[in-house]
Amino acid sequence: MSEPLDPAGEAAAVDLAGEARRLDAADALAPLRERFVLDDVTYLDGNSLGALPAHVPARVDDVVRRQWGELRIRSWEESGWWTAPERIGDRIAPLVGAAAGQIVVGDSTSVNVFKALVAAVRMAREDVGDGGEGGGAVRDEILVDATTFPTDGYIAESAARMTGCALRAVTPAEVPGALGDRTAAVLLNHVDYRTGRLHDLPGLTRAVHACGAYAVWDLCHSAGALPVGLDEHGVDLAVGCTYKYLNGGPGSPAYLYVRRDLQPRFDSPLPGWNSHAEPFGMRSAYAPASGAVRGRVGTPDILSLLALEAALDVWDADGVSVAAVRAKSLALTDFFLRCVGAYVPAGRVESVTPAAHDERGSQVALRCDDAGEVMKRLVESGVVGDFRAPDVLRFGFTPLYVGFADVERAARVLARTLG
Amino acid sequence: MSEPLDPAGEAAAVDLAGEARRLDAADALAPLRERFVLDDVTYLDGNSLGALPAHVPARVDDVVRRQWGELRIRSWEESGWWTAPERIGDRIAPLVGAAAGQIVVGDSTSVNVFKALVAAVRMAREDVGDGGEGGGAVRDEILVDATTFPTDGYIAESAARMTGCALRAVTPAEVPGALGDRTAAVLLNHVDYRTGRLHDLPGLTRAVHACGAYAVWDLCHSAGALPVGLDEHGVDLAVGCTYKYLNGGPGSPAYLYVRRDLQPRFDSPLPGWNSHAEPFGMRSAYAPASGAVRGRVGTPDILSLLALEAALDVWDADGVSVAAVRAKSLALTDFFLRCVGAYVPAGRVESVTPAAHDERGSQVALRCDDAGEVMKRLVESGVVGDFRAPDVLRFGFTPLYVGFADVERAARVLARTLG
Repeated sequence: MSEPLDPAGEAAAVDLAGEARRLDAADALAPLRERFVLDDVTYLDGNSLGALPAHVPARVDDVVRRQWGELRIRSWEESGWWTAPERIGDRIAPLVGAAAGQIVVGDSTSVNVFKALVAAVRMAREDVGDGGEGGGAVRDEILVDATTFPTDGYIAESAARMTGCALRAVTPAEVPGALGDRTAAVLLNHVDYRTGRLHDLPGLTRAVHACGAYAVWDLCHSAGALPVGLDEHGVDLAVGCTYKYLNGGPGSPAYLYVRRDLQPRFDSPLPGWNSHAEPFGMRSAYAPASGAVRGRVGTPDILSLLALEAALDVWDADGVSVAAVRAKSLALTDFFLRCVGAYVPAGRVESVTPAAHDERGSQVALRCDDAGEVMKRLVESGVVGDFRAPDVLRFGFTPLYVGFADVERAARVLARTLG
Repeated sequence: MSEPLDPAGEAAAVDLAGEARRLDAADALAPLRERFVLDDVTYLDGNSLGALPAHVPARVDDVVRRQWGELRIRSWEESGWWTAPERIGDRIAPLVGAAAGQIVVGDSTSVNVFKALVAAVRMAREDVGDGGEGGGAVRDEILVDATTFPTDGYIAESAARMTGCALRAVTPAEVPGALGDRTAAVLLNHVDYRTGRLHDLPGLTRAVHACGAYAVWDLCHSAGALPVGLDEHGVDLAVGCTYKYLNGGPGSPAYLYVRRDLQPRFDSPLPGWNSHAEPFGMRSAYAPASGAVRGRVGTPDILSLLALEAALDVWDADGVSVAAVRAKSLALTDFFLRCVGAYVPAGRVESVTPAAHDERGSQVALRCDDAGEVMKRLVESGVVGDFRAPDVLRFGFTPLYVGFADVERAARVLARTLG
């Protein structure tokens, strides 16, 4: 497909298209693209819904026809259905820098934010003797990222209301100054869903700990795209979705990380029977399981869980590591910003994604007043990103299947669309 | 397959096998069996996991390959993903006696119990001026069925703790006597998971209302097997799973019913972005949607949701109605009890399922000391029910695909196994 540019941009386009070919030829991850179902659309929306890994349909079909259709309830044991939440959690663990036994998969991100935040407040209060009785501080405030994807804020408000805390919204930069001896928990995003800004997880976690509070990190826009280092940085609790950079499929279940030493103290507000020490004992008294299983709630959603499990196989291919993915991600976003700079008339869009690598996730967000209309026309031209109200064009770069030629084409079509 | 009986039982077996053939020949629902994937196993565990409807695998494959694989994010609109929770809720509605617009599908039963119970307490308090300020009663007690499937009790305990209520466990028979002006909400099961006892939903709901409290009904073991009449009986809130008599597949999402006139007052403890009045407005202030949508939380689980939607097509076949299903269900359980009476030595098992039709769900539970071992051998012999601790053999009868010959064979194999 050829996209006409104005004559001034022609020479730059020839150069950048050539550079894209050279970069793709040198890209060790390029062969992974074959593992996904893609077409001639330039798909830069993997940060909303990851593309379909090519082997997943056959796996899902086996789950439906054989495991459900033929084995029926025997599959709870024989097909490993019952243990899927923690088994698949252990597959996600290395991608976010966690040792095994600390992640369970299940429920939505929103539900997991609720579990994590309420549990965090309870731990903070336990530390000070449940409301100051031990002579310590009263822990009655939750801090939440003021720029968060809205659901985290809504759920934090409910968690605060139900634990008798005040909720205060502050930007991540303001967090260190806002922390105090009343802070119980802080809910933060590793990467901002709108701007793509990467926040300082190690530094903010240290600051939260220094005041005796608990840090809950939302990894939706970082897991699978860049190193997280949950264990290394001592994160307390974390949640994330699996349908973006982990390619688990539409609405695939989210996950919950509870650091191993905190697990015995994890006091869930949703203590469903799957989190019981003896789930088939049918006991009327609740007794929590030990380990990550304690974060489970109800019957796991098997079709979606096992589609996700299959999707994670992509990460077992030779040479795939989070470090390699991160290096390519930065190269892709760097190259996109260069192409946009070369093709798009100055001043027509403004990048709200930080230029510094250590502040950038795996997306580029461009602000322009008519973003909604522009994205509509871009999609019609076969470049799929998404629009985030009120004025942001959002482009996500999944290193497993996006190449440099995609990037160059997207910038070229964007320039024409904006022209 | 032929199962030898002792000579004394031989004549009875010939008679009952003949009667089973006549009953099957006269059964208007018998042709529906062809719509399910079944084999020579006698499957009496549809009250744990419904059998696979034969057309579901192709539908799921289309969701995975075309909707996810080809359309990707366009499917949120073009394939109706975004509206699936309420659309599928409207498919379930007639099966539980609800008009459209009152049910959403999503999350697990446990999570929906939490939403319903917390919302019920909040309504009860609002009625009396939030804790007695209006001069009314203080609503600070939740009643829960003492014989409930454990998860409801565990979640009720959490809901009570987080709303500052006391939790009292009473049997359904004790509920009328336990109700008082402190009762905020009552969580009840329509059919007991263990004994198969059908509780008096109309009468208990009236009693709960008479004291000014709210009734939350768990329909897991009744929806799809017998008439529920949610609207007719003025039920406030209800939840249920979809993988038993609705055949939605392993861990398919549960549903939440909020009676239409209560929807404006439904104050969710899990106000995720999917329940926002303007979910894509990305607003930091929460404003609940109107209608059933208010019961949503996070991103819906599309693969499982759409498998369920396909499974519900079975109910569109000619002549299928909840009334017809109920009539056959009672005929099946009656016949099973007769066959067990004829084949099994007196005293070897004891039915804990009520004999009266208006007290019986769609299962028969037989108590015997060695139930765990007996069920293991039954399954090995091709009769699949399940064991519920400590001493119950549980047999579920799904009228859509279980026939009278299955029933006769199950009782015959049971007699041999117990012999």
